[in-house]
Amino acid sequence: MFELLKTDASSKARVGRLTSPHGTVDTPVFMSVGTQGSVKALDPRELRELGAQIILGNTYHLNIRPGLEILRAAGGLHTFINWPGPILTDSGGFQVFSLATIRKIQAHGVEFRSHLDGSLLFLGPKEAMGIQRELGSDIAMVFDDCPPHTSTPRELRAAVERTMRWARECREQPRGPEQMVFGIVQGGTNAEAREECAKALVTLEFDGYAIGGVSVGEPEPEMMRAVELTEPFLPASQPRYAMGLGTPAQLVELVARGVDMFDCVLPTRVARNGTAFTRKGSISIKAGAYKSDFRPIEESCDCFACRHFSRAYLRHLLNVGEILGLRMLSVHNTRMFIRVMEEAREAILQDRFAEYRREFAASYVPTRKVLLARAAEAER
Amino acid sequence: MFELLKTDASSKARVGRLTSPHGTVDTPVFMSVGTQGSVKALDPRELRELGAQIILGNTYHLNIRPGLEILRAAGGLHTFINWPGPILTDSGGFQVFSLATIRKIQAHGVEFRSHLDGSLLFLGPKEAMGIQRELGSDIAMVFDDCPPHTSTPRELRAAVERTMRWARECREQPRGPEQMVFGIVQGGTNAEAREECAKALVTLEFDGYAIGGVSVGEPEPEMMRAVELTEPFLPASQPRYAMGLGTPAQLVELVARGVDMFDCVLPTRVARNGTAFTRKGSISIKAGAYKSDFRPIEESCDCFACRHFSRAYLRHLLNVGEILGLRMLSVHNTRMFIRVMEEAREAILQDRFAEYRREFAASYVPTRKVLLARAAEAER
Repeated sequence: MFELLKTDASSKARVGRLTSPHGTVDTPVFMSVGTQGSVKALDPRELRELGAQIILGNTYHLNIRPGLEILRAAGGLHTFINWPGPILTDSGGFQVFSLATIRKIQAHGVEFRSHLDGSLLFLGPKEAMGIQRELGSDIAMVFDDCPPHTSTPRELRAAVERTMRWARECREQPRGPEQMVFGIVQGGTNAEAREECAKALVTLEFDGYAIGGVSVGEPEPEMMRAVELTEPFLPASQPRYAMGLGTPAQLVELVARGVDMFDCVLPTRVARNGTAFTRKGSISIKAGAYKSDFRPIEESCDCFACRHFSRAYLRHLLNVGEILGLRMLSVHNTRMFIRVMEEAREAILQDRFAEYRREFAASYVPTRKVLLARAAEAER
Repeated sequence: MFELLKTDASSKARVGRLTSPHGTVDTPVFMSVGTQGSVKALDPRELRELGAQIILGNTYHLNIRPGLEILRAAGGLHTFINWPGPILTDSGGFQVFSLATIRKIQAHGVEFRSHLDGSLLFLGPKEAMGIQRELGSDIAMVFDDCPPHTSTPRELRAAVERTMRWARECREQPRGPEQMVFGIVQGGTNAEAREECAKALVTLEFDGYAIGGVSVGEPEPEMMRAVELTEPFLPASQPRYAMGLGTPAQLVELVARGVDMFDCVLPTRVARNGTAFTRKGSISIKAGAYKSDFRPIEESCDCFACRHFSRAYLRHLLNVGEILGLRMLSVHNTRMFIRVMEEAREAILQDRFAEYRREFAASYVPTRKVLLARAAEAER
């Protein structure tokens, strides 16, 4: 189902093609996040125009609202949300451990209270795979235990063991027709834990492998390390997915580390606060500097927002609270993430990825937070 | 600039064509409201697809944010918001009298405090026309005194006199190239005041005439009466515009009373609360009745929302607070209003408006509030 088309000579970057029941996906790929059955503020036509190949849905959220009964009656998630392309569903593990109030971690799953109305729910390997089967996603994720960045070694150990055990249970569950299942490697920045978890999962022969336990509040260097500690133990013939990451500059660096698939809420989340991603880093369109700036967000961008509207107009819309403002920033940011992946694919295929990577990093100014973390790392 | 193409035999309904610098407008027409430079939640492409011919902007709001300096630098409102079609701008009179804290009504305008930051501003005939000239709208409205529904006869009288005097002052102001200027008739439901105000304005030879002082909290029968008391004194050769109205059923009735142009925030405002307009009246898509209803909002509707999404999905989106939900209801409701006007035009041209009007009223169930007002009127 995954075809590795080319591997870069200068790095671990790869170009591949993933075949799913709802179409093929060229990798490296950025997947837009549609947690509750909608990529925030965007419609399916806009997503297609932006070059979106595959989007995400979330088991935890969709199971609470609208609930499985309605999704089943609709004929699955694709039909319900009217997205004809591939869908990957997260298992809900991350959400149970980050959003819900956990009542009891049991052998075969977690008893927890809904973050919405406090109702008592249970999610484990069997339930998560069953829901994803009914959702009809093209790629289902195993139910894992995603420990926070601040976990003790003992907690991390327990999470890794639970993750490996639950992965086996997920593997044994029935799946939908042609549905792929990806394993998730945990282990924080502990080399032994990452290796052990990755190897255990690979023996289970999943269709792809995700690197989890990143995007949990850790500084950038630790995130890179977690990926570097995991990747060598993943088979080159299968797709690798880094969960919940990152900025455009981080995505390019992760491609260089051999990652094929990404998802992140950043493009649409920061859009709602008036932040736009550009080749030079992120900028706040609300800033006074743009009040009479009649250029598009980015001159070289081919998105609907950049083809139709100026920074001055978008700034006005954001400042008066007009929905069109955050819509257009969501369009632009999503296009930026997708386009960077398109460019990376082209660069790898044309043997100039090292140059692309260098130039991208040279022009992209990271946020202060990222820079401080890098400086701290350099002093270690 | 206005061509009267046909008048209905059964009513005062008319079909006409208005020629403006940015294109022609077929009447009767529904104009979408873009108060702050954006028809709420919609983009210009969507508006075109919905059949929008002309949209509104608001002098009061645009003058406060982004301010005239930025709009001037942008090259006017059309360029700033990227709407290539006709624009009508309201004068700000209604907003000064309804939103702002008035400090002093003077001979040549009103000194008031911005509803936004309390800053002291002044708007009168000269200022309102000057701003609209710079905005470059195709149709500018005179600066009027719009008294509330609860005004005393004395207050109403003062408002009418001020409106007539200010209309004359507006008429004397320079206008933009080919810019049309419409007068606004006030007078509440007082027959003499409406007649006097209408006649005074007609002598000033405006390009069209608006019926103001409606949509100010009055029950439906009083609104209809205000229009009926004004229309006979307006020249048949000029377009008539009823400001701020109404529901689809009211629009059809107002077309029958000789009105050519409408604007209303209802389609997009109620969309944000989850209300959809249908041929049978308005419905709350959030209602539990729709949770497994996989039909579109309206089977016969040709809008993007009805072609792509079910009530069940839209209900889910609205209930979880996804922007796509209110976006799609804004699309549907706006299309409904525009399509009703398209149908009315066709019906008038084909000599079957009486039938269309009867059938529309028979199937459309008004809100409880409207029904109660009609019942009270019947008992008078």
